Amino acid sequence: MMKEILVLGSGMVGSTIAADLSDKHSVTAADKDEYKLIKLKNTYPVKTLKLDIFNKQALTNELGDYDLIVSAVPGFMGYTILKSIIESGKDVVDISFFVEDPFDLNDLALSNNVTAVVDCGVAPGLSNIILGYHYAKEKIRSFKCFVGGLPFARVYPFQYKAPFSPSDVIEEYTRPARIKENNVIVTKPALSQPELLNFNKIGTLEAFNSDGLRSLLKTLDIPDMSEKTLRYPGHLDVIRILRDAGFFSTEDVIVKDIKVKPADLTSKLLFDSWKLGDDEDEFTILLINIETEERGEISYFLFDVRDKQTGFSSMARTTGFTCTAVVNLLAEERIRRKGICPPEYLGMDEGNYEYVLKYLAERNILLEKL
Amino acid sequence: MMKEILVLGSGMVGSTIAADLSDKHSVTAADKDEYKLIKLKNTYPVKTLKLDIFNKQALTNELGDYDLIVSAVPGFMGYTILKSIIESGKDVVDISFFVEDPFDLNDLALSNNVTAVVDCGVAPGLSNIILGYHYAKEKIRSFKCFVGGLPFARVYPFQYKAPFSPSDVIEEYTRPARIKENNVIVTKPALSQPELLNFNKIGTLEAFNSDGLRSLLKTLDIPDMSEKTLRYPGHLDVIRILRDAGFFSTEDVIVKDIKVKPADLTSKLLFDSWKLGDDEDEFTILLINIETEERGEISYFLFDVRDKQTGFSSMARTTGFTCTAVVNLLAEERIRRKGICPPEYLGMDEGNYEYVLKYLAERNILLEKL
Repeated sequence: MMKEILVLGSGMVGSTIAADLSDKHSVTAADKDEYKLIKLKNTYPVKTLKLDIFNKQALTNELGDYDLIVSAVPGFMGYTILKSIIESGKDVVDISFFVEDPFDLNDLALSNNVTAVVDCGVAPGLSNIILGYHYAKEKIRSFKCFVGGLPFARVYPFQYKAPFSPSDVIEEYTRPARIKENNVIVTKPALSQPELLNFNKIGTLEAFNSDGLRSLLKTLDIPDMSEKTLRYPGHLDVIRILRDAGFFSTEDVIVKDIKVKPADLTSKLLFDSWKLGDDEDEFTILLINIETEERGEISYFLFDVRDKQTGFSSMARTTGFTCTAVVNLLAEERIRRKGICPPEYLGMDEGNYEYVLKYLAERNILLEKL
Repeated sequence: MMKEILVLGSGMVGSTIAADLSDKHSVTAADKDEYKLIKLKNTYPVKTLKLDIFNKQALTNELGDYDLIVSAVPGFMGYTILKSIIESGKDVVDISFFVEDPFDLNDLALSNNVTAVVDCGVAPGLSNIILGYHYAKEKIRSFKCFVGGLPFARVYPFQYKAPFSPSDVIEEYTRPARIKENNVIVTKPALSQPELLNFNKIGTLEAFNSDGLRSLLKTLDIPDMSEKTLRYPGHLDVIRILRDAGFFSTEDVIVKDIKVKPADLTSKLLFDSWKLGDDEDEFTILLINIETEERGEISYFLFDVRDKQTGFSSMARTTGFTCTAVVNLLAEERIRRKGICPPEYLGMDEGNYEYVLKYLAERNILLEKL
């Protein structure tokens, strides 16, 4: 069932999504940045549309022509864009990971008969699909999710490359993490409860609390849930130093009669050193521990590296292909649910769960059951 | 021999100097900041003068009334102020530790028949006096100086308090260090060649190259000389991280259409966390190793803490009292040398060397020979 699909945002993940979907569908990639569009158009059968996505009127004028929308825009504009898409009555898969609560748009989505799949990346995203699958089958005691995207080359002091803007990473590193303990939602400080985990080939990584449970805090009745970000040991220390010294503050500081927000300068300084090079090898690692009443602990492990042939980073692959798998579920009318639909709801349908895993496996993203 | 003495700058060290000298001399303390002057005047028999020291005409108008000048101004204005003092024909003791080469003012000082003692603190300062003393007596193979001023309370991430502006400390941490190896002046990167040293009571400190040899590179013919700064272990790592991430850069960065120098913001952010509280206990530690041809290694050790009675910090005591000892040498006409006179020249006179040590000992600053 070939569809007319509009992919909003042609960054690293958005362009991977557009490229992957162009195989089976008629895809238009929209971005403000013409350079990104030209790059995409030159390699894949993708139509392009230069568009100021954040301009509501301009966006709304375009949406009517498509069957399905993918929103791969930066987080800060994600909620606003999603609202416009829902208002236009179009089904949508969103990977912008905005901080607002998507369920605030649930009534709007229901009244417009829209299916809006949100947080549809790797984690959140694939992790929710896996958890939803088990949740539908059995009683679950606890869920722990560890996820990270890292470069193979460990350059001091950060040993890190950001597949997105440093300002988004800084935001992640300052936002308190909501986790679930004994059926209660508890807020932990950002970067808290570090622990070291050993992985084959990669060695030791450090995990710390991050605010990645999101919809799971509302949708699933599981007593204990946590989500942690994985980084090379040492990264957290550096980040804590910057935070404790005030470099992540978003309050104005007067420097020689000029107002500056330290976080803005920090983001600017880190931008170059955190920029992932086009041909820089990196990996995505995902470890999920699910404790069930009957079967004890079930673990899933995913390790993915950059695809040297296409140049797609593992972060773009794992995020983007989970998204495109779900776009295809929508295209094939396999998702009946309307309203805001976080990925855990999709996983509850065994057929759809298997569809997504097969789709990923065909792209050499192999989820290992430990 | 009571003298009319003008002390320029009433910061932590300047006010300690004025207070100490007011015992025997007629002292006037000058500063732009009236609050500092009032504090001083309320406790010690010191006259005060509200003065914009950096205004050359205003300064020159005042200098004529005094026999002797002490310059305890911030480093960035030190050289300019010293030049004005020399031009006015007044003997001077300087502890501003400016980065310019004082010997550029030697001809001016000689032609004005002025004795200008520069770098007259603890290290540089007392360390030079000690080295000069030995240099006059015997052949010296190497000189190593380790010095630091630290708070007893070790607060993360910096474990440090600056007795002066963070911008001066940042400058110290970025300026390459000139040391002497095999008779050759070699430039080492700032913060380089860290080593751990153990001290009684204090435990382990970390030493790294700093640019503190200054005049010694020119005045004394010693094959190997180095100067290192002492900090708590961990401090250097934090500083390196900030440096490597670009936070010490003095080049403009455009942040949201506004130009900012990262070092300016960093200095501003560190100012509060590095501020030494009025009643905060701190210490100054100085270790000197002198290797002589005949007698092998001779070591000196100095450990000084804040004086709870006067409230003078150890940094103000060790820097200020070395300075006032030398002011008294000048007042008693015991220094015959004219021109720029770094402290190593003073130490070469055994009587003056013993005078300084006795002066310090009377103030409970005890130099221990190991």
